[in-house]
Amino acid sequence: MKALRYVEVGQPPQVQEIPIPQPGPGEVRLKVTAAGACHSDSFVMGLSAEEYAAFGYPLPMTLGHEGVGIVDALGEGTTGVEIGEAVAVYGPRGCGRCHSCAQGMENYCQHAAGLGLTPPGLGHDGAMAEYMIVSDPRLLVPLGDLDPAASVALTDAGLTPYHAIKGSLDLLVPGSTAVVVGVGGLGHMAIQVLKALTGATIIGIDVTEEKAAFAVENGAHHAFVSGAGVAEKIREVAGGPVTAIFDFVANDAVMAMASEIAGPCTDFVVVGAGAPTRTVGLLGQPFGSRIRAPYWGSRPELMEVLDLARSGDLAVETEHFSLDDGAEAYRKLHDGELRGRAVVIP
Amino acid sequence: MKALRYVEVGQPPQVQEIPIPQPGPGEVRLKVTAAGACHSDSFVMGLSAEEYAAFGYPLPMTLGHEGVGIVDALGEGTTGVEIGEAVAVYGPRGCGRCHSCAQGMENYCQHAAGLGLTPPGLGHDGAMAEYMIVSDPRLLVPLGDLDPAASVALTDAGLTPYHAIKGSLDLLVPGSTAVVVGVGGLGHMAIQVLKALTGATIIGIDVTEEKAAFAVENGAHHAFVSGAGVAEKIREVAGGPVTAIFDFVANDAVMAMASEIAGPCTDFVVVGAGAPTRTVGLLGQPFGSRIRAPYWGSRPELMEVLDLARSGDLAVETEHFSLDDGAEAYRKLHDGELRGRAVVIP
Amino acid sequence: MKALRYVEVGQPPQVQEIPIPQPGPGEVRLKVTAAGACHSDSFVMGLSAEEYAAFGYPLPMTLGHEGVGIVDALGEGTTGVEIGEAVAVYGPRGCGRCHSCAQGMENYCQHAAGLGLTPPGLGHDGAMAEYMIVSDPRLLVPLGDLDPAASVALTDAGLTPYHAIKGSLDLLVPGSTAVVVGVGGLGHMAIQVLKALTGATIIGIDVTEEKAAFAVENGAHHAFVSGAGVAEKIREVAGGPVTAIFDFVANDAVMAMASEIAGPCTDFVVVGAGAPTRTVGLLGQPFGSRIRAPYWGSRPELMEVLDLARSGDLAVETEHFSLDDGAEAYRKLHDGELRGRAVVIP
Amino acid sequence: MKALRYVEVGQPPQVQEIPIPQPGPGEVRLKVTAAGACHSDSFVMGLSAEEYAAFGYPLPMTLGHEGVGIVDALGEGTTGVEIGEAVAVYGPRGCGRCHSCAQGMENYCQHAAGLGLTPPGLGHDGAMAEYMIVSDPRLLVPLGDLDPAASVALTDAGLTPYHAIKGSLDLLVPGSTAVVVGVGGLGHMAIQVLKALTGATIIGIDVTEEKAAFAVENGAHHAFVSGAGVAEKIREVAGGPVTAIFDFVANDAVMAMASEIAGPCTDFVVVGAGAPTRTVGLLGQPFGSRIRAPYWGSRPELMEVLDLARSGDLAVETEHFSLDDGAEAYRKLHDGELRGRAVVIP
Repeated sequence: MKALRYVEVGQPPQVQEIPIPQPGPGEVRLKVTAAGACHSDSFVMGLSAEEYAAFGYPLPMTLGHEGVGIVDALGEGTTGVEIGEAVAVYGPRGCGRCHSCAQGMENYCQHAAGLGLTPPGLGHDGAMAEYMIVSDPRLLVPLGDLDPAASVALTDAGLTPYHAIKGSLDLLVPGSTAVVVGVGGLGHMAIQVLKALTGATIIGIDVTEEKAAFAVENGAHHAFVSGAGVAEKIREVAGGPVTAIFDFVANDAVMAMASEIAGPCTDFVVVGAGAPTRTVGLLGQPFGSRIRAPYWGSRPELMEVLDLARSGDLAVETEHFSLDDGAEAYRKLHDGELRGRAVVIP
Repeated sequence: MKALRYVEVGQPPQVQEIPIPQPGPGEVRLKVTAAGACHSDSFVMGLSAEEYAAFGYPLPMTLGHEGVGIVDALGEGTTGVEIGEAVAVYGPRGCGRCHSCAQGMENYCQHAAGLGLTPPGLGHDGAMAEYMIVSDPRLLVPLGDLDPAASVALTDAGLTPYHAIKGSLDLLVPGSTAVVVGVGGLGHMAIQVLKALTGATIIGIDVTEEKAAFAVENGAHHAFVSGAGVAEKIREVAGGPVTAIFDFVANDAVMAMASEIAGPCTDFVVVGAGAPTRTVGLLGQPFGSRIRAPYWGSRPELMEVLDLARSGDLAVETEHFSLDDGAEAYRKLHDGELRGRAVVIP
Repeated sequence: MKALRYVEVGQPPQVQEIPIPQPGPGEVRLKVTAAGACHSDSFVMGLSAEEYAAFGYPLPMTLGHEGVGIVDALGEGTTGVEIGEAVAVYGPRGCGRCHSCAQGMENYCQHAAGLGLTPPGLGHDGAMAEYMIVSDPRLLVPLGDLDPAASVALTDAGLTPYHAIKGSLDLLVPGSTAVVVGVGGLGHMAIQVLKALTGATIIGIDVTEEKAAFAVENGAHHAFVSGAGVAEKIREVAGGPVTAIFDFVANDAVMAMASEIAGPCTDFVVVGAGAPTRTVGLLGQPFGSRIRAPYWGSRPELMEVLDLARSGDLAVETEHFSLDDGAEAYRKLHDGELRGRAVVIP
Repeated sequence: MKALRYVEVGQPPQVQEIPIPQPGPGEVRLKVTAAGACHSDSFVMGLSAEEYAAFGYPLPMTLGHEGVGIVDALGEGTTGVEIGEAVAVYGPRGCGRCHSCAQGMENYCQHAAGLGLTPPGLGHDGAMAEYMIVSDPRLLVPLGDLDPAASVALTDAGLTPYHAIKGSLDLLVPGSTAVVVGVGGLGHMAIQVLKALTGATIIGIDVTEEKAAFAVENGAHHAFVSGAGVAEKIREVAGGPVTAIFDFVANDAVMAMASEIAGPCTDFVVVGAGAPTRTVGLLGQPFGSRIRAPYWGSRPELMEVLDLARSGDLAVETEHFSLDDGAEAYRKLHDGELRGRAVVIP
């Protein structure tokens, strides 16, 4: 079968012909119907050879941690799913038995790192292939009648902002203000989720007028281009400090801007893959404020995200590619030429 | 092997010699180290032949929905547990894949009834035998170094009140009052859990002075014998209406008493297996009050209960029996001659 | 000044000329800009002389517990509001100092009944007059630029369903189902609030096709006329049991229907002023279900309701009357001739 | 009357004779029965003249933001408290009307800074005097029969850790681990609150063996002296990363140690008055972790703290001083010579 694989550090991914994999005991094989390309893949492919080795990922490795497919074969002893069932892959993979995993929060498994458990495409072969292996049927969520290409990105680009926002929901009452920084693949979904589930005033921030317009298209009440004076504009429409900031960029400039628009109890939610530096503590951040770094989402939340799409309140902007064009999809993602999310149809 | 089985409707259970069961694909066999006897077993054995048939339970059926043991054999494709591991059985059994099950709340599975899924001992062979089959390793929680006989009752008699109380925890702040009605197998654990996890004033209610004293031994601040005037006594020590009522009896008399001690926002938590009648609604119950009927508990909560026992804050009062004496254990349970919980050691 | 007052038990209210009231120490006088008529006023005017006396309400009594106005005069020592400020009256009145009141939940004050504290129009003179007295400035919420006539009904018809729904919000995730029974003054607002704040599928139920259509206009995804077979229709669109039922009718027929559509963890929220009878407890209601009787709402929730209206997500259907036509407003309300809410403009 | 006042920047506070203050409209005068000395007073008295001016505090200023007393005189129009009532002063002072204040969270008032509202002793005359003025009766919580000297420190040294812990309560289930860094006035109360309200394993950390022993006396299961290797010791008794860290020190060394013991979802709660620097975000802090900076507590929480003391589960270690010895109390506090809390009895 064909698979889009990361083969050599520093080189673009390439399509290779490899054998169709066989499911082991307790495992499931999917015929992949769609796979999504994500910034975290780009991040991994941007690592140096040394850094990549430190992650312990194999080479070659089939890409893709966003995947949907049809159950195609079951390993011995595998129960709970039926051949022919349409499913979405829940990507975070935990031990399945700790206190976090027992609640469906495998994204926060206490033992995954120690046990070397990784998501597909981020440590072992992923979804950018004609077939993929899923290690346990519990990681499969019914897709029902959702269109595969239209919904595959929900498994990360939808789930991650949904989980981030869910942790702030009790604060986002009518009269509150939510700021979304970075209106790309995840950010445009964040705006839709905020629109669907809260009464908050939504403000989108990005670096171009085009992206600001994209924020408004997705439901933002206001949108501004970042730069000098943007904090004042935000405070003005918010009528003071904002309630929550969802940061999909995660650099020092955003953190500085965020500090200017924060006040008592502001929730700083840093979703983007970065490590900005800042002061914390009673004299270092606003009274009662929180700085959170949520990661991906839980299994029940993935079900909720799919249901939100089913009801029409969540729709991903996508651009489609074949497996052979997969490398081009990552190039456009890396160069900021995508509006929304790149989806590969094997 | 020996198994304590319900063989004929209306007759006491009896010990039968049956083959050691074999685990099917994905299943686990345990060498049982302890099993607990529960009022719900008595309830089932008290049904008429017609009622029993309506439940759809088989005959004969090995009793016991409280079980702990050692992993002894794995079916094909079974992963996630090791031979020789000490485990507790999480009794509620759901589909494992719905929104409730994904959170570990198989006690509230949306599909269990439709799929005919039942707990061990309440629909298929249970823990009162030398060996038992568990349908999926996800239903096994590590027991660690806890003593089997001392901890088996935690899987129901501990978990059920823990779950009931957890749903009221946000109300049970210091200054609040919690009333426990029925200080038996579940009730004495409820008092300990309230003591360990809340700052509430705890009041125990039962029908004898001996049981009232048992409530105080377990940590109640006050205990009264039920009957005329008890509502006044409770209101006096509470300084008004009470915050929560945990009712392990569930009859009309308790419901009437509960109404006398309730006020705005009182949480009526009816845990006992009954169906009392009452008025509800804005003119039928106190403003803001709730009437809840929690059932058993979730898988992560079972872990918490075992950890609470591990820290020394929760200890079940037990009386031990052999399998051959199992019928006698149920007789004493039925006749109210037990203080605490009957445990069968195969 | 003119005031619409309940003067004689069993007779319609009448307009009387009475002196403009003077604010006492700590009190505030409002120039009323709008007042709302509510079913609970009708309920009170439907009591027998004996029942009315049992409530301890005076005669005559100016009606109206929904009121907005302009701060017009301050009693001695009154601080915190300014003459000329537009405000909405928070109707529930507690002691202001107990644990509930300290959280702004004066609707659940532990001492209000004992102290004889009542809302305006339900125990002392209310808002259906040219001027009204408010006992403490803490009970006044800024109205800002909201139109008085369009927003006065938010103080009860908006706040009550908002509070009821807020208590179920954690259950109303995408994929859940919410049923609203009774699509009148409160019910049509409930549908709008559910639409604005949840991803739930919303189902409206009422007795006529016209009311069902009104439910859909307000945002319900489905609406049915009550009667034989309605439970099956609801279960079909819900794909099983429903998540929450908001009952603005509160009689035995609704309770029976509600039982047919409930399942594990269903939240029965009985908002209407009734006292239906039913079985409760583990064998009397679905596992994990709750029966709640919320009353009115909290002060911070009233702020949230006003903000939801300000953002355009909540709009009351109203019909306007003068004080002189106030008795006619109550007649139409009583006879079910209103669509939405009657508002009196003094 | 006598008052302990901060008179000159950089000099110790001194006792001055000043007139007994008169309560204005809506205000209350207390006869002070006890006042507490706090590190934040020391912090203020350690500011340079320039910094002090930036805070906008007056000179001279009577110290003391922890106060209890007897209602002694009421300003005109003041209602809600009775002459002779024993009360505790809720120190945080907000506008009383915003969304935060309406919930009793005046510690997070959105307008306090803009309106120049300050707690007593931190911006206007405080409790270290024979009499004090409280601006509104809503800020007074009934003290009941609690001993003034034994309970005055609960208003800050008790309330602040209580509020900090309450924000982590949902995480602190049985099996979790809570670390308290700094076992002084606030830290020893934190340990008692954790003991009373959670099933967590409690670990105390401080710089001396004596303080470690003090942690154990107050209920810690383990206590270690900080320094090289302490993170390993903590991880060993916790069996991995810890659940929550309550940091009453707030410097870079503690933050570095905290990072070593943190893992997925760890709650860093920085209570001490500091501004350490650290990395945040998905690559800068553990997945799902939070960094919070809670400030003081809410009014309903103060009631809960007093009730916890009333039930015997919370007791402050105190050392008593006269007003004349007040300066010495602050010296001992500053020099770390106190065990527990300094209380001044006017």
